[in-house]
Amino acid sequence: MISKWGGTMKVLVIYTHPNHQSLSYSFLQKVLEGSRENPAVSQIRTLDLYEEGFNPVLIFNETKRRRDMHKDPALEKYREMLLWADKIVLVYPIWWGRPPAMLLGFIDQMFASGFAYRDKGGLLPEGLLKGRSVVCISSMKGPALYPLLWLNNAHKVLMRKALFRFVGIKRVKFFEFGNMESPKGRHEAKLDRVYRYFRTVAR
Amino acid sequence: MISKWGGTMKVLVIYTHPNHQSLSYSFLQKVLEGSRENPAVSQIRTLDLYEEGFNPVLIFNETKRRRDMHKDPALEKYREMLLWADKIVLVYPIWWGRPPAMLLGFIDQMFASGFAYRDKGGLLPEGLLKGRSVVCISSMKGPALYPLLWLNNAHKVLMRKALFRFVGIKRVKFFEFGNMESPKGRHEAKLDRVYRYFRTVAR
Repeated sequence: MISKWGGTMKVLVIYTHPNHQSLSYSFLQKVLEGSRENPAVSQIRTLDLYEEGFNPVLIFNETKRRRDMHKDPALEKYREMLLWADKIVLVYPIWWGRPPAMLLGFIDQMFASGFAYRDKGGLLPEGLLKGRSVVCISSMKGPALYPLLWLNNAHKVLMRKALFRFVGIKRVKFFEFGNMESPKGRHEAKLDRVYRYFRTVAR
Repeated sequence: MISKWGGTMKVLVIYTHPNHQSLSYSFLQKVLEGSRENPAVSQIRTLDLYEEGFNPVLIFNETKRRRDMHKDPALEKYREMLLWADKIVLVYPIWWGRPPAMLLGFIDQMFASGFAYRDKGGLLPEGLLKGRSVVCISSMKGPALYPLLWLNNAHKVLMRKALFRFVGIKRVKFFEFGNMESPKGRHEAKLDRVYRYFRTVAR
């Protein structure tokens, strides 16, 4: 399917926040708004993990083998979404320096061996999601420099290197917004920045 | 209560792994074994988050306010355990460079404002769990140098700085074991190191 402008890019937005009265939800709206006006985009889908009632608890044992996780029928719907997407957009708050457990539990289960990567015996596996791009939009209470200077950039490192690089995704862009509970947070300017990015981003 | 040797240290071990056929479970056993033989220890309690069926999904909305989370009756039992403990020991595998979502969801809910820390208006809050010490015992498939060299030490930074320092806990020790799915992993030596540590640790 192509857009009326001829665009072919399929955008999947994964939203992780307990409710819709939140700044994260405003960011989600700006992603959707910008993407709808973007000539390069053909289709947009949203996955709201809380609304979905996703169970973030990864279980494996004698009967439910970890090596079969990549074909677990209960997760088929989400695998299909991830494979469908050209661009995966993650919208979430930062809690304790990293994304909420809900999103990380989605990752624990979805980025399974045999689906997201394939071990080849070496140090790095073959990434099976290559070709896609990712945008992470996070917001936190504290100042924006806090994770960079005090936390060694741990959040970005975990997303970029420990996760997406491992499954073959090299293009990862971050919008990491701080001071979000402060009147000095300049919310409107930040929301507008996200809107303008998605209105024009090409791949 | 004091031990037969006169020790008074209370040890809480929080175990996070989907099953008991795992190396994490072997580490748990060594923690318990060593602690039982340690004259400084008076009591030991174990919290197995998976067996407990803990729900790691943090929810807050119009009726369930985040500011009331520190007195949520459903979590009273766990608050009591955390306050009871002098030493908190966390045993878990490393998935995607960090602890499983189950443990991080426990943290999302338990380390609430008003219980674990109190905002004072400044950059750092007042830590309400001070005086305690923490030991993190993690194991991963990849080589032990991988998180240090490739991930900027993200796992340790998140636990030490983003979490425990924030709630007033400065004494955090790590056993971060790599190569755990390899025959070169020297499992016995690592298990023995944990056992010997807990047999003698004083505070």
